[in-house]
Amino acid sequence: MNTANYTKCWLDYKELPEARKRACFYYPVLMTGGKVADTAGEEYCTSMAQMLGEPVELLGEAIEEPGVYMEVDPELEVPDCEEALAFQTFMISEVEGSMIITGKSQEALLQGVFAFVRMVYLGELDEKLPYSFTPTMPLRIMNHWDDMDGSIERGYSGQSFFYEDYKMFYNHRTETYARLMASIGTNAIVINNVNVHEKETYLITDVYLGMVKKYAELFGRYGIKLFLSVNFAAPMELGNIPVSDPLDAAVIRWWEEAVKHIYEVIPEFGGFLVKADSEGRPGPFTYGRTHADGANMLARALAPYGGIVVWRCFVYNCGQDWRDQKTDRARAAYDHFMALDGKFDDNVILQIKNGPMDFQVREPVSPLFGGLKKTNMILEVQIAQEYTGQQIDLCYLIPMWKEILSFDTYGMGEGTTVERVVSGECYGQSLCGIAGVINTGDDENWTGNDLAAANLYGFGRLAMDASLSAEQIASEWTRLSLGSSKDVTEVVVPMLCGSWGTYEKYNAPLGIGWMVTPHYHYGPDIDGYEYDRWGTYHRADLHGIGVDRTEKGTGYVSQYNEPWCSIYGDLGKCPEELLLFFHHVPYTYMLKTGKTLIQHIYDTHFEGVQEVETMQRNWNTLKSKISDRAFSCVAERFERQLENAREWRDRVNTYFYRKCGIEDEKGRKIYP
Amino acid sequence: MNTANYTKCWLDYKELPEARKRACFYYPVLMTGGKVADTAGEEYCTSMAQMLGEPVELLGEAIEEPGVYMEVDPELEVPDCEEALAFQTFMISEVEGSMIITGKSQEALLQGVFAFVRMVYLGELDEKLPYSFTPTMPLRIMNHWDDMDGSIERGYSGQSFFYEDYKMFYNHRTETYARLMASIGTNAIVINNVNVHEKETYLITDVYLGMVKKYAELFGRYGIKLFLSVNFAAPMELGNIPVSDPLDAAVIRWWEEAVKHIYEVIPEFGGFLVKADSEGRPGPFTYGRTHADGANMLARALAPYGGIVVWRCFVYNCGQDWRDQKTDRARAAYDHFMALDGKFDDNVILQIKNGPMDFQVREPVSPLFGGLKKTNMILEVQIAQEYTGQQIDLCYLIPMWKEILSFDTYGMGEGTTVERVVSGECYGQSLCGIAGVINTGDDENWTGNDLAAANLYGFGRLAMDASLSAEQIASEWTRLSLGSSKDVTEVVVPMLCGSWGTYEKYNAPLGIGWMVTPHYHYGPDIDGYEYDRWGTYHRADLHGIGVDRTEKGTGYVSQYNEPWCSIYGDLGKCPEELLLFFHHVPYTYMLKTGKTLIQHIYDTHFEGVQEVETMQRNWNTLKSKISDRAFSCVAERFERQLENAREWRDRVNTYFYRKCGIEDEKGRKIYP
Repeated sequence: MNTANYTKCWLDYKELPEARKRACFYYPVLMTGGKVADTAGEEYCTSMAQMLGEPVELLGEAIEEPGVYMEVDPELEVPDCEEALAFQTFMISEVEGSMIITGKSQEALLQGVFAFVRMVYLGELDEKLPYSFTPTMPLRIMNHWDDMDGSIERGYSGQSFFYEDYKMFYNHRTETYARLMASIGTNAIVINNVNVHEKETYLITDVYLGMVKKYAELFGRYGIKLFLSVNFAAPMELGNIPVSDPLDAAVIRWWEEAVKHIYEVIPEFGGFLVKADSEGRPGPFTYGRTHADGANMLARALAPYGGIVVWRCFVYNCGQDWRDQKTDRARAAYDHFMALDGKFDDNVILQIKNGPMDFQVREPVSPLFGGLKKTNMILEVQIAQEYTGQQIDLCYLIPMWKEILSFDTYGMGEGTTVERVVSGECYGQSLCGIAGVINTGDDENWTGNDLAAANLYGFGRLAMDASLSAEQIASEWTRLSLGSSKDVTEVVVPMLCGSWGTYEKYNAPLGIGWMVTPHYHYGPDIDGYEYDRWGTYHRADLHGIGVDRTEKGTGYVSQYNEPWCSIYGDLGKCPEELLLFFHHVPYTYMLKTGKTLIQHIYDTHFEGVQEVETMQRNWNTLKSKISDRAFSCVAERFERQLENAREWRDRVNTYFYRKCGIEDEKGRKIYP
Repeated sequence: MNTANYTKCWLDYKELPEARKRACFYYPVLMTGGKVADTAGEEYCTSMAQMLGEPVELLGEAIEEPGVYMEVDPELEVPDCEEALAFQTFMISEVEGSMIITGKSQEALLQGVFAFVRMVYLGELDEKLPYSFTPTMPLRIMNHWDDMDGSIERGYSGQSFFYEDYKMFYNHRTETYARLMASIGTNAIVINNVNVHEKETYLITDVYLGMVKKYAELFGRYGIKLFLSVNFAAPMELGNIPVSDPLDAAVIRWWEEAVKHIYEVIPEFGGFLVKADSEGRPGPFTYGRTHADGANMLARALAPYGGIVVWRCFVYNCGQDWRDQKTDRARAAYDHFMALDGKFDDNVILQIKNGPMDFQVREPVSPLFGGLKKTNMILEVQIAQEYTGQQIDLCYLIPMWKEILSFDTYGMGEGTTVERVVSGECYGQSLCGIAGVINTGDDENWTGNDLAAANLYGFGRLAMDASLSAEQIASEWTRLSLGSSKDVTEVVVPMLCGSWGTYEKYNAPLGIGWMVTPHYHYGPDIDGYEYDRWGTYHRADLHGIGVDRTEKGTGYVSQYNEPWCSIYGDLGKCPEELLLFFHHVPYTYMLKTGKTLIQHIYDTHFEGVQEVETMQRNWNTLKSKISDRAFSCVAERFERQLENAREWRDRVNTYFYRKCGIEDEKGRKIYP
């Protein structure tokens, strides 16, 4: 575990030019006590001292000089929204030469300070004042897939900085981590993998609770709740109970006792995240119970203490027979959970992956967001680039998440966007929001590729303020992390914003997904998942490719509200980036671009490589304009990305050329 | 490590019926002293006591009654053959009512006793007397791929019974193992994997030599030499020498010292097995030296003590680009070693895999056997069923090895069979023979599948007596291991003999190989190795499949003597079981059977499954006719084999149907 050398990412404020220093010379005054308010004051001093190049000291009471007044005001006026959001509102205003940062709560004040500092550093404060802000998402959760052996499932940034060899560590890096998370608005963190193995099952016991408490207290000072992933079979594994049936009295009692003890040790504990009946994990199905039975049992144990259960909807048959063309994994989440709408307790939240499959480069939005109406929902996205380049290849994901959030589910008629569903606006939930599977590790730069930090930063910023554009976020991150000179931003911002498109071009075509090396999920293997048990098929033959998910096929389209059901079900209307997800299409099918499908495949794969070459060239112009460390790290990643893109291009093109025998119109090299 | 429960395999002699007991009631007399002769006497008593159901005691001198006289006679008349074989001759004869077992050496006497006991048990003694026997192969070597962590590379029978957690163990099982090996004629054993990792590098040092010595002494009592696989980079890893250049004086001196010390500890030490410059192993290429330089350097260190170097020819580029259609892995061994013919010292032996690729279900014979003439050679086969069913699927390999041994290389004109080359008959070597990568582990039955023991037994028997037919060996093994009733032999013997053919039917078609799950090598993955770096391609497209290895293709055929070069190079003459190994062939090509290639693929894959179903049915008739343990073990394996065969059938058929779109003539179910 590397706890010695690490960057401060976007919090590495540089000293400002003298002219700008003068403009922000105020005395800071913290008007309110409390542990999170104290953190706010501290954060102000730390950050401003960096910018000013001299120590900044906090004053305890109002003064004559113009000051920066930090205060909590429960009476602060807020927009018309749920309490969960109202509570998180802050305001920054100028009154008689002084700056006032007012939070409706201590947590809101801390967010106000982070915002204030950022705006000062970016030189954006003046234009924005007065600035009143309420977050978009009530809950903004980080999911760590860290295992206690020190590895990180789908981690591409080194080892865990929480665990090593089944021990849990607390150190300066843990503190920096908490600060980084708070700085982008995170208010909940699940510190262990959803796949809860044997040793991790003990996290909810005295074996580890002492260390968990230290984390919870640290997080608490930053306004962040700590959650644990739990093993649904814990009563059997820890409690010597023969079952883990959620309706069994002994099981219920066991969880009640376990939860009671957790709250005795950690009064501010957030709750549980649960992956049940999925990919080999235990769950209520074993006992013929529903997921509502399972989730509610845990929820009732947590309710007396204000704890909540986050229950994942990633439930599907992972033992499918490839010969079976009727079963469709895409249907699974909706099929399992739709009938349970309204049956979950108030402190249960369903955590729903953005798409119906699993974090592919391109998927349609999960139809559950348009289906469920009486259930708390969290949108789950993957900041870790499992299928999107593993932090070797550049793939800035904010544009993808923007598309998802702005997708209109038509759940309550036009305008029922995913954003409005998971923010609670449509159905009035306050337990809802967004969760991201985090991409951090103990690498010096936290995220393997320096540019991958833009996804982490962006996730937090988008969760706070979904109105930000992908470009605005990219620009903010670049200026905070790499430098604000035009030389830098004019290279980096467009590079980030175009990178998902580039990655998609050299990957599996038109939404079909899954053409990756099995298990590793990096690099191409066109048939790698084609004859496997995971429900992940492209069905390519000599005539065409794609999965028929229309009413005539697996019927998946019928899980969508109109007009999507009709649009997706109609070959001519289906958005072409999802064409092969919904339809089996001949290679000679003419796309709206006037190209055949096969020519589109060839063209995009040649283009993808060219675009990577361009990105690499552009990056190389930054040498000596940004830190050597960041420059070299990313330069090395671009080398590998280029190799990967070429491998994708050649394998995909050869695969389809061998299948259909159709020549590239432009006569480029396709290996026979 | 399981050292408590294990069978005696083919040495589990049952008590004979009274009538047959009387016929073998003789007093055993050991006429010669010596450690191997003592083992022979002991073996006689142990085995006969089992058959007679009462203790058998050895007498020290001639007696009046008819006896079984065991003796060593250096003057024993032998056929015209190399000294290495003459020395191993034994004779069994009847003289005035007594049986005389005479060995030209102690080792030969021990083999005579094993043969005598076996013939008594099988009731074959009378018909064979007088019986004079000289082995076919001078060296009959077992190669263990056991690693010191306790795992076995490509092992399918549990863990190692030599090692666990980097310790080496000696116990009753080790002793039973040595006896089993000697009973089938083994006279050399390499106790560690050819891939010599960090810890195993220390086997030649005092860290482990004490235990190695115990093994060597045990093996020595059974007439078996112990060999070690060594790390060519040992001087660097152990000796602090900056290079392992075979021409470097410090390196030479280091090996001389190391070898000297080994022989001080273990005077009967056999020598080294070396995998160099292969699949990431270090070797002489690093220093611009030849493999002759490397092998001879080690050979010269060993020569003063009578030790030998076995040097593997499995050298190829394992970082090939799939786009490259010129490089041909099949060419590699010949290309690397042919030019070195005559350049190796007398105590160097090249160990050559049977085929040019790597133990596939079907390969042509390596052209090196027809090329090398002034070099000691060992044929390497794989008893462990890496690509041939992993001891789950039944695949009796003796028929394959018989084909290989009887292949006429035309190296010295017609009749230069592989058997005559590696037995030393053609070129007069005495250091030559056959090596088998062993299939044992710590499973109760030693070989995972009880029937896989027939491969182990058969390897030894064939190495001793290549004139035995596959059926004779199958019959011997069945009667020794499962029982001699007709009910049993009439089921098991044909099942064994047909099983390779069955396995081949549902595997990759017509010699192309490699359609297996990468790394694991069990189960189908048609494109699994198609775009990989291992030089293993089938080049299937919508028109046809196969690799052109003719003069117009990679030129591999030119490594063969005539007439093979012409035969393999001619699509019309090429043996059809190797058609796709040598030619790229359209699916519509008409085979000699009058079937198209694609119809042949479909037919054989349907037939393969049917044949497994038949084997399974036949096996089930044996319930209660053989031991429950063996019955259940094999029955369970047949379940898995049937599932595997079905998966192969459906994936192969679907793959090719999707590629070419040609319907099965018989309208059977091919999944689209």
